[in-house]
Amino acid sequence: MDITHQLAIIKRGCEELLVEADLVRKLETGRPLRVKLGLDPTAPDLHLGHTVVVNKLRQFQDLGHRVQFLIGDFTGMIGDPSGRNATRPALTPEQIAENARTYQAQAFRILDPDRTEILFNSTWSNELGAAGMIRLAARYTVSRMLERDDFAKRYRANQPISIHEFLYPLMQGYDSVAMQADVELGGTDQKFNLLVGRELQKDWGQEPQVILTMPLLEGLDGVNKMSKSLGNYVGITEPPGEIFGKLMSISDALMWRYIELLSFEPLAVVHRWRAEVEAGRNPREVKVGFAKEIVARFHGRGAADAAAAEFNARFREGALPDAMPELTVAAGAAGIALPQLLKEAGLTPSTSESLRMIEQGGVRIDGERAADKALRLAAGATVVLQVGKRRFARVTLV
Amino acid sequence: MDITHQLAIIKRGCEELLVEADLVRKLETGRPLRVKLGLDPTAPDLHLGHTVVVNKLRQFQDLGHRVQFLIGDFTGMIGDPSGRNATRPALTPEQIAENARTYQAQAFRILDPDRTEILFNSTWSNELGAAGMIRLAARYTVSRMLERDDFAKRYRANQPISIHEFLYPLMQGYDSVAMQADVELGGTDQKFNLLVGRELQKDWGQEPQVILTMPLLEGLDGVNKMSKSLGNYVGITEPPGEIFGKLMSISDALMWRYIELLSFEPLAVVHRWRAEVEAGRNPREVKVGFAKEIVARFHGRGAADAAAAEFNARFREGALPDAMPELTVAAGAAGIALPQLLKEAGLTPSTSESLRMIEQGGVRIDGERAADKALRLAAGATVVLQVGKRRFARVTLV
Repeated sequence: MDITHQLAIIKRGCEELLVEADLVRKLETGRPLRVKLGLDPTAPDLHLGHTVVVNKLRQFQDLGHRVQFLIGDFTGMIGDPSGRNATRPALTPEQIAENARTYQAQAFRILDPDRTEILFNSTWSNELGAAGMIRLAARYTVSRMLERDDFAKRYRANQPISIHEFLYPLMQGYDSVAMQADVELGGTDQKFNLLVGRELQKDWGQEPQVILTMPLLEGLDGVNKMSKSLGNYVGITEPPGEIFGKLMSISDALMWRYIELLSFEPLAVVHRWRAEVEAGRNPREVKVGFAKEIVARFHGRGAADAAAAEFNARFREGALPDAMPELTVAAGAAGIALPQLLKEAGLTPSTSESLRMIEQGGVRIDGERAADKALRLAAGATVVLQVGKRRFARVTLV
Repeated sequence: MDITHQLAIIKRGCEELLVEADLVRKLETGRPLRVKLGLDPTAPDLHLGHTVVVNKLRQFQDLGHRVQFLIGDFTGMIGDPSGRNATRPALTPEQIAENARTYQAQAFRILDPDRTEILFNSTWSNELGAAGMIRLAARYTVSRMLERDDFAKRYRANQPISIHEFLYPLMQGYDSVAMQADVELGGTDQKFNLLVGRELQKDWGQEPQVILTMPLLEGLDGVNKMSKSLGNYVGITEPPGEIFGKLMSISDALMWRYIELLSFEPLAVVHRWRAEVEAGRNPREVKVGFAKEIVARFHGRGAADAAAAEFNARFREGALPDAMPELTVAAGAAGIALPQLLKEAGLTPSTSESLRMIEQGGVRIDGERAADKALRLAAGATVVLQVGKRRFARVTLV
């Protein structure tokens, strides 16, 4: 495939590509490039947000390149020794191995295993030793490290930065040296670290890696980035019906964003859809097609068809009225409990009535029966609430 | 010996003792304390400036304590990997071993070998590994490290600080953990690093070391700190006559400072001398006694007596006139060449005449024949220049 065409595919949805001329030169050699993605082995459940970069890896594979899927087991085993970052516990080798297997199993739903190399950075990081670590640390200055966005902010705000946090970008950069990476992918929040790799490779006399950052995918609310802790995510191991339903719930505007970053449909097809919707086609049809593509990716075509059929049946059964009250309810930082929400939306006269209706199975959220009386809903979402047969409200939580 | 008396000896000449209450508690246990001094194995020639702390170690030994003489071979073998600090080359294990032997030989002119343990920090530093290094780095924050005086200045002045420079104080602190040091000595410029050791020991559940800083000894000029590169030093391996003559050249004010920091005469004796001089005794007599003590320390009593006799003979032979011109000559940053200096001091009509007089052996500096036509003199010194039998000038170089 000619280089212009390759470039168009590589750049689709990408936030930043540095340096394009370097990439062109590498592509011109015609050899398969080594395309690196580093992963922290702490939280092995991938959601669609994570797959944005994995998809890009797959596109590289389809262009004939090779993927280096790096499990950061070295730092994973260290965790956060300052104890400040509770989300970074030290993991045992067994946990790492288990998480790595889980990652692989999930990644191989997208990646071609034959063009994927799984690497563990403990291989070369342990060999560095204390002396190698000092030599590595000598490659970068304090002030340049403090230019990194989050460090700069924390430093200005007098929030503590442990010195070992300065070592992690260097370790990540050294991974690129050890792997002789041609390209490294990451989220936009990784840009600084990816550039460190570029510079260290130069120090080691290697051709510097091209860095390619992908945007952080918004969650189902269309506002915050997709994240497990915010509850606005689609996990790739969720059941087909869940994935399908969640994707059908997104706004039409967000749909185009998801299609750009998650669909493998050629750009020409996506452009045609856009034109059709602008000309009057119901965007719901496009959404169904996209949701099926994603379900099929993780569960196969049959599961996708079944999920779509089931969704339509439920949709018809709990068919929504053409018009319903549109409300805004304050959820606060802690979210709002469902019984309270029903009352504030005017669907029940009291929270005790709300509780009774939930117990009787008379409450639905987005067409699905709500059975959990303790359920809390977070700010950012828009949901259709239904109590009994006829009481509806479309509520945006703020 | 009671603790009050021990404390008086320990505190003699010391700049700072942190925390005195901790030291008292340690002394009260009655066990021999482990007193640490760390040395960089790069420049093995000790001068009197270095011996200020070594003398203090000796005083601890005389009080029954044990010295831990630490050779920093681990960092010595790394050198300065950023290449910015030319005075910190990476050393081979052979060079380190050789330098360590030289250090020992010199230190044992002052220390009691039976109460001295020689340690090498590579023993425990290599074992740390890259992971241990990261854990160590997690113990300290960037902002606290930037509080160190020289870091703060360089950071404000936008001068580069390599990240590995943040690791060195931590390594030095970890040495104290590995050695379970009770007390660590250092120059005033070491205070921050010594405190890091104190804190790391607490982190490791040890009783924190007491830190004791000694002032940096002024050089012969009485202004700059004693240093080989400034030429204002007395090397402890210099010949007896050199040491004696250099010490006789210091000002009377500087003499008291040297006596405080370098003499082992009891404080009571020193106080008596001061009183005598104030009452009219010629300070030169005190100076001779002090110079003999120092020569005797490094070359024995016989050599000291001989040096004093020789000095007196030369002093009589080249006896200075009662009055001579007092001049100030600009030496500039690069110093001034002797022939030029003689001319500017009005002792010769031209530099070519200066050269001729030097060749003929007719030029003396502080009573010593000057034979080196290329000699340059640096700013800061005051010297008596003599050309032929009768031309004298006392010149202060600025």
